[in-house]
Amino acid sequence: MSLTHFNESGRARMVEVTQKDETVRIAIARGQVKMKHETIEHITGAKIKKGDVLSVAQVAGIMGAKRTSDLIPMCHPLMLTGVDMSFEVLKDCILIEGQVKTVGKTGVEMEALMAVSIAALTIYDMCKAIDKDMEIGEIRLIEKQGGKSGHYKRGE
Amino acid sequence: MSLTHFNESGRARMVEVTQKDETVRIAIARGQVKMKHETIEHITGAKIKKGDVLSVAQVAGIMGAKRTSDLIPMCHPLMLTGVDMSFEVLKDCILIEGQVKTVGKTGVEMEALMAVSIAALTIYDMCKAIDKDMEIGEIRLIEKQGGKSGHYKRGE
Amino acid sequence: MSLTHFNESGRARMVEVTQKDETVRIAIARGQVKMKHETIEHITGAKIKKGDVLSVAQVAGIMGAKRTSDLIPMCHPLMLTGVDMSFEVLKDCILIEGQVKTVGKTGVEMEALMAVSIAALTIYDMCKAIDKDMEIGEIRLIEKQGGKSGHYKRGE
Amino acid sequence: MSLTHFNESGRARMVEVTQKDETVRIAIARGQVKMKHETIEHITGAKIKKGDVLSVAQVAGIMGAKRTSDLIPMCHPLMLTGVDMSFEVLKDCILIEGQVKTVGKTGVEMEALMAVSIAALTIYDMCKAIDKDMEIGEIRLIEKQGGKSGHYKRGE
Amino acid sequence: MSLTHFNESGRARMVEVTQKDETVRIAIARGQVKMKHETIEHITGAKIKKGDVLSVAQVAGIMGAKRTSDLIPMCHPLMLTGVDMSFEVLKDCILIEGQVKTVGKTGVEMEALMAVSIAALTIYDMCKAIDKDMEIGEIRLIEKQGGKSGHYKRGE
Amino acid sequence: MSLTHFNESGRARMVEVTQKDETVRIAIARGQVKMKHETIEHITGAKIKKGDVLSVAQVAGIMGAKRTSDLIPMCHPLMLTGVDMSFEVLKDCILIEGQVKTVGKTGVEMEALMAVSIAALTIYDMCKAIDKDMEIGEIRLIEKQGGKSGHYKRGE
Repeated sequence: MSLTHFNESGRARMVEVTQKDETVRIAIARGQVKMKHETIEHITGAKIKKGDVLSVAQVAGIMGAKRTSDLIPMCHPLMLTGVDMSFEVLKDCILIEGQVKTVGKTGVEMEALMAVSIAALTIYDMCKAIDKDMEIGEIRLIEKQGGKSGHYKRGE
Repeated sequence: MSLTHFNESGRARMVEVTQKDETVRIAIARGQVKMKHETIEHITGAKIKKGDVLSVAQVAGIMGAKRTSDLIPMCHPLMLTGVDMSFEVLKDCILIEGQVKTVGKTGVEMEALMAVSIAALTIYDMCKAIDKDMEIGEIRLIEKQGGKSGHYKRGE
Repeated sequence: MSLTHFNESGRARMVEVTQKDETVRIAIARGQVKMKHETIEHITGAKIKKGDVLSVAQVAGIMGAKRTSDLIPMCHPLMLTGVDMSFEVLKDCILIEGQVKTVGKTGVEMEALMAVSIAALTIYDMCKAIDKDMEIGEIRLIEKQGGKSGHYKRGE
Repeated sequence: MSLTHFNESGRARMVEVTQKDETVRIAIARGQVKMKHETIEHITGAKIKKGDVLSVAQVAGIMGAKRTSDLIPMCHPLMLTGVDMSFEVLKDCILIEGQVKTVGKTGVEMEALMAVSIAALTIYDMCKAIDKDMEIGEIRLIEKQGGKSGHYKRGE
Repeated sequence: MSLTHFNESGRARMVEVTQKDETVRIAIARGQVKMKHETIEHITGAKIKKGDVLSVAQVAGIMGAKRTSDLIPMCHPLMLTGVDMSFEVLKDCILIEGQVKTVGKTGVEMEALMAVSIAALTIYDMCKAIDKDMEIGEIRLIEKQGGKSGHYKRGE
Repeated sequence: MSLTHFNESGRARMVEVTQKDETVRIAIARGQVKMKHETIEHITGAKIKKGDVLSVAQVAGIMGAKRTSDLIPMCHPLMLTGVDMSFEVLKDCILIEGQVKTVGKTGVEMEALMAVSIAALTIYDMCKAIDKDMEIGEIRLIEKQGGKSGHYKRGE
C-alpha cells in the first residue's frame, strides 16, 4: 500500500481514474466548532433571528463542496448530485454534518470534509467579533459508500 | 456586544468597514491532522521523496488563503501582502501553522484559518488511500495584530 | 407540490438527483437592456467598430453560463455541451437570447438565465459611462426540453 | 462623450484608472422577481420556514457582488468594504435592493447590479420547481455616490 | 473546413457537442522556459532545497488544467480523470510536459496546453527576482488520442 | 541574490511585501502564436467576420490578467487599474502584446504575461479544429516600470 498521489519521479499528480466505473458515491463527514456558552446564546438567542448564522453556514458549506477540486490540488472535478448539511447546537459547541453524493469515478470524501470545514469557518467568521477563542475540530469522515474500496464506516 | 454580521432585519450582510483605517494586520492560526504512525512514516519515510505531501499542502494553503473571500460569505476581499506556512511532523500528528499579513481595513484571521484548513484537507486528501481515520482538529487563532480591537494572543 | 430545495429542518440543500437519468437538456432564455436611442447609436454607429459591445457581451454570457453553479448556491454543477447567444438591436433596446445544452441529470434553465443576465450586465457596464439610466429586464425562461418535467414553452 | 471601454483599434480594454483618486463609493441598485401569488405564498407561508429562500438569495447576492470582476469582462477588481441587501415581498413580486460600498478608484454600480441579479436568479432557482413563469426585471441603478462623475440619483 | 467556434452571425459560441460519444481522451503538450544558466543553478543548486520551484510549478500546472474552461472562453467543462506533469532541467532551459486524460465528448488539448502554460508562468514567477530575461516558448500539442478526429502525433 | 519565494525551511511562501510602498506599476509582455498561413487566412479572411477570433482572445486575455493570483501560487492579489491588449497579424504568426497597470506594492509582470498566455491559448482553442500544429512562443517581459527594482527594458 502506498500513497497514490505521486508519480515515478516522486512528484504529485492527479491520480488516474480514467478506467474506473462510475458508481453512486456517498460520503458523510462531521466536525464541530467549540465556543463559549454565551456565544452559543448569541447564535440561538433572542438577540438575532434564530438560526441565521447556521443558514449562512449551510449555504457556505454547500457552495464550498462544489469548489473542492478548485482548492484541493489533487482532487478530481466531480458533478455533485446532492449536498445536504445539518447542525446540532449543544451547550458550548455546534456539531456539523455534511452529506455529499455523486455518480462518478472517485469518492466524495473530500467534498464532504470541505463542506464541513467551510461551514465551520463561516460560523467562526460570523461570531469572531464576540469570541476569538472558538476552536474548529474533530473534522473526520464518518461514512463512505461506493467504489472499489467498498463501504467504510468510522468506528466511534 | 452583538454579532456584527446582521442588518436590522436580522439578515446577514458584509459588515461595513468603509471608514476604518488601513493598518498592518497579522494573524497566525494553527491546526493539526492526527493520523496513524504508519501514515506519518509514509509521508516522511523512504517510500516517497521526503516532504512532498507537505509541499503540496503548503501551496494549497497559500492559494486557499487567497480565496477566503470567495468561499466565506461575509468575508471582505483583502490584498494579502504575505503568507507563510510551516509544518511540524510529530509521531502521530502533523502540526500546521499559517501566518498571513495585509495592510487593510479588516483583519486576516479568516485567511490564516483558511490556509490551515485547506492545508489540512490537502494532507488528508493525499493520504486517504492508506488511512481514512485521520482527523483534522484544533484549528484556532493563535495571534492577531492590528486594527481597533488590538493585540489578541490566545491563552494556551 | 412544494419547494424542493429544503430539507426536513427547513434549511436549504442541493436537491438530490443521484438516481435521475442523464438526458439531453436544452433551455432557452431571453432578456433585454433598455437604453436611450443615442446609446444604441453609440453601440451600432460609426463611432466604434460595429458590434464590439455585443462581442464582449457574447463572450461574457458564455463564460457566465459555465460559472452558474459557482454563483447560484443550490445549482448542480453540469458539463455544458453547447452555449449560443444572439442579440437583436432595436430602437431603444437590445434583446438577448441564450441557448444552453447539456446531457445531464438536471436542466439548464439557470445556465441560460445566467448567460442572459451576465450578457446584459456586460452591456450595461460597457455603456454606463454615457447612460446610467439603462434598465435590465424581462429575463425569463422561453423553452426547456428534457427531463421528467417534460417540454415547457412559455406562453407569450 | 464616447464609450470608454475601447482602445484606438476599436477593441475592448479595461479602462485605465491608474491616476484616479481613491474615494468612498456607494451604489444602490434594485430589481424584482415577478411570480404567481401562490409562489409567493410558498416562500412566505407556513409550508417552509419563513424567509429561507430570501436568506439564501441574500448570501448569494453578497457573494456575487464579490465576484463581479471575475464575470464582467471589463470590470476592475475592487475591495468591497460593505454589502447589504434587503427584500420586500409584495403580492406577486419580490423587490430586491442591493447596496455596495468601497473606497476605490472606480464606482461600484456593477457590483450592486450584480448583487441584485444573482439574488434574483437564486430566488428563481429555488422556486422554479413550482413556477417556471417567473420573470426577473427592472434591474437598474438607483443611486451612486463618489468619484468624478458625482452624485447620480435615478429619476423615478 | 472552417472555424467551428462561430455561429451563423459570425459571433463566437461554445461548439455544440451534445450528440458526441464519450470516449477516452488523452492529450500531451510540451513547452519550455529558457533562462540563464545561473538561474538554473539557483533552482537545482545547493542554495535551496532541490526541486521546490518545480514542485510548486507541478501543483500549479495540475490546478491550472482543472481551471481551463473557466479561463478559455469557448472551452467545454470536462471532468479530468488524470493529470501528470514532468520536468527536465537542461543547461539553460526547463522542459515541461503535461499529460491530461478524461472520458468525455471533447478532447483535452487545451487542458494539457494550459497545464504547461501555468507551470511555465509559475517557474517564471518564482525566478523573476533573479532573472527577468526568461522566455516561455515552444508550447505545443505533442499527441492527442480519442474522439472522431483520431490520433494526432506532432511531426517533430 | 537568491530566490525570494522560499522561507527558511526551503518551502515556498508568498513573499512578504507588507512594508513596501504603493507605486504606479506598469508591465508590458509579448508573445506569439505561430500557425499555417491558411489558418491566418481563416482568421482574417472573408470566411468569418474579420477579427472575431482576436476579439475573443482580447476579452480572454483581460479576464485572465485579473485571475493571475488565483492561478499562479505565489502571486500577490492586486487591484489592476488598466489592462490593454493588441494584436498584429503577420503572414504565419499572430503577435500579442499585453499591457497591465496597477498602483500597488508589487509589480504586474505576471499579470501581463498571463494576459498574453491566455490570449494565445484562446487563439489556439478557436483555430485548433483546422490546425493542430500551431505553436505558442516567445512569451516574455518587454518592459516594467515602478517599484524598487526600477525600470526594466528587455534588450532585443
